Amino acid sequence: MKHIRDIGELKLIERLTKGLRLDKSVVVGPGDDAAVIRRPGGKYLLYTCDMAVEDVHFKRAGATPFGIGWKALARNVSDIAAMGGVPRYATVSAALPGSLGVRYADGIYKGLKGAADRFGVSIVGGDLSRSAKITIDVSMVGEVERSCLVTRSGARPGDLIFVTGTIGASGLGRHLKFMPRLEEARHLVSRYRVSSMIDVSDGLLLDLWRVAEASRVGSRLYQNAVPVSARASSFDEAVREGEDFELLFTMSTAQAVRFMKRGIAGMKTPATLIGEVTAGRPGGIEIVRPDGRAERVRAGGYTHFL
Amino acid sequence: MKHIRDIGELKLIERLTKGLRLDKSVVVGPGDDAAVIRRPGGKYLLYTCDMAVEDVHFKRAGATPFGIGWKALARNVSDIAAMGGVPRYATVSAALPGSLGVRYADGIYKGLKGAADRFGVSIVGGDLSRSAKITIDVSMVGEVERSCLVTRSGARPGDLIFVTGTIGASGLGRHLKFMPRLEEARHLVSRYRVSSMIDVSDGLLLDLWRVAEASRVGSRLYQNAVPVSARASSFDEAVREGEDFELLFTMSTAQAVRFMKRGIAGMKTPATLIGEVTAGRPGGIEIVRPDGRAERVRAGGYTHFL
Repeated sequence: MKHIRDIGELKLIERLTKGLRLDKSVVVGPGDDAAVIRRPGGKYLLYTCDMAVEDVHFKRAGATPFGIGWKALARNVSDIAAMGGVPRYATVSAALPGSLGVRYADGIYKGLKGAADRFGVSIVGGDLSRSAKITIDVSMVGEVERSCLVTRSGARPGDLIFVTGTIGASGLGRHLKFMPRLEEARHLVSRYRVSSMIDVSDGLLLDLWRVAEASRVGSRLYQNAVPVSARASSFDEAVREGEDFELLFTMSTAQAVRFMKRGIAGMKTPATLIGEVTAGRPGGIEIVRPDGRAERVRAGGYTHFL
Repeated sequence: MKHIRDIGELKLIERLTKGLRLDKSVVVGPGDDAAVIRRPGGKYLLYTCDMAVEDVHFKRAGATPFGIGWKALARNVSDIAAMGGVPRYATVSAALPGSLGVRYADGIYKGLKGAADRFGVSIVGGDLSRSAKITIDVSMVGEVERSCLVTRSGARPGDLIFVTGTIGASGLGRHLKFMPRLEEARHLVSRYRVSSMIDVSDGLLLDLWRVAEASRVGSRLYQNAVPVSARASSFDEAVREGEDFELLFTMSTAQAVRFMKRGIAGMKTPATLIGEVTAGRPGGIEIVRPDGRAERVRAGGYTHFL
C-alpha cells in the first residue's frame, strides 16, 4: 500500500483537489495564495486558510505562546496581501492538549488578537477541541478592488522580478514574529500594474517556481542582486529556507521603471530588483552566479511529507 | 499552574474570546452557529468553522474515510442551515500522518467533495500538513437574506419549541453520515417567522440551554413529546448525546399554528412540538416527566476538557 509520505505534498494536493466542482462566481479556485470570489458590490472576496501544527510548524521550546498565535493569523494576512487585498474577517480553530496551562492558551490567543487588531481583522468565530499537539487553523476572508487583484499567473516574458526586504533569516525565530507585507502590497497594487505576486512562505526558489509554473514562463535570478539576510549562512540556503513572508512580484519593464523612479523609496519595506521573467521552460529557474555563469536549478523548498 | 482541562470548555472559550474587537459590519460575532456579516448587495454573509480530530471526534476503527470527510464538511453546512442560510464556499485544512495510506486520504477527500457537491458548496482553498492524528478543519462561508436570518437569541416566553427528526441515535455511527437539515431550515425560514434556531450538535439539552441562555428565557420540555430514536437506550441519555444535527427552533404560537396546519407535512424531515419557552430563570430547563411531575435539570451535554 502506498503511503502519503511516498508521493510528496505537491502530488498529493494535485490528487486531492482533482474533480472539485466550483461555482461560476469563483474567479480563482485552489492553487493561489487565496481564492477569489465574485460578489455583489464591486469588490472581490478573498478566502484562504493556514494550519499550524506543533512540532511541524513550530516547537514549544523556542517559541512564545504569543508568537505562535501571531504567526497563525499573520500567515493568512500575508496570503491576502499577496493577492493585493485587505484582510477583514477570520475564524480560529484550535485543538489544544488538556494539560496545556491556561496562561499558555491565553498567550496564544493574545497573539491571535494582537495580529488581528494590528491588521484590522475581526475574529468572528472559532472552534475549540482537544488534541495531543497544539494545532491552530485560521481561515480568513478579505476583499480586493477588481483593479487591484494580482494572481500568480500573470507574469510575462520580459517582466522584471522584485522581492521586498531580505531573504533567509527565517531560521532564527523571525518566522514567529514576522510582519506580513500588507501595507507594502497595498502601496504596490494601488499605484502600479503588478503582473504577478506571491508571498515567500516556502523559500524564494519554490515560490518563484510556483509563479513561473502558473504563468507558464521561465525566470532568471541574479545571485548578486538577491538581498540575502546578514544572518543567513549562504545564498543557496537562504533561497531554500521556508518562511520569509516577503512579497515576490513582477512588473512589466515600463511599470518597473516608474516604480524604481518614484516608488521604491515610498515603500515601508524596500523592494529589490532581483531578476527577470523569460520565455524559457515553464517553471524553469536559472541563476546567474557572481562569476556570470548561468545555472539551471531545481526549485527545492520546504514541503511536507518529504 | 492551572491547566485548561481544569476550567472546562465553556469557561475557556469565554476567557479566550474576551476583548475581541469587531468591525461594525459584524452583525453577530462569536457565540452563534455562524457569524453574520453585513456586506454590499442585500444579503448577509455567514461564516463558521469546525475542526474534527481523530480519537476525539471520531476513531478510525468504526469510521470510513468517506464518512470522516463527509462529516467534517456537513457539520458546517448544518451550522449555516441553523442560521437560516445557504452554504456557498469552504476551505479545508487537513493535517495527516505521513503513514496514512494514499487511498485513505483519497477517501476522506471524496467524502469532503461528496458533501460539498450535495449541498452546493465550492471548496475554494485548503492547506495540507503533517501530524500524528488526522485533523480536519473546515471553514465555510454562506449567505442569507436579511429577512431569513435566525439567531439563538430571539426566543420569547410563550414561543413553542420544535425539533426535526429524532434524537439520540448519534452513538450508532449515524453521526458520520448524517444529513444536515439544510432544505428543512430553508423551508422554515422562507415561510415562517422562526424566532430562534440552533443545530443539535452537543445534545438536545445543552443546545436548548444555549438558546435559552442567549435569549434570556427559560424553557419547558415535555418528555412524552420528544421524538427519541428507537435506537436510543433511554430518554435521559438521548437528550444528552452529542451529535444529532437536527434543528431545534422556536416560533410564536401564531406562527406555530400556521406551521402545524400547513407546514409540517411539507417538510422533508418532520418536526415535532416538544415544549415551550417560559419566563423562567434564563437558561433554565424544566422537564415535564411522563407522570406530570416537573423537574429542573442541568444542561449536561458533550463538552471537551471535562
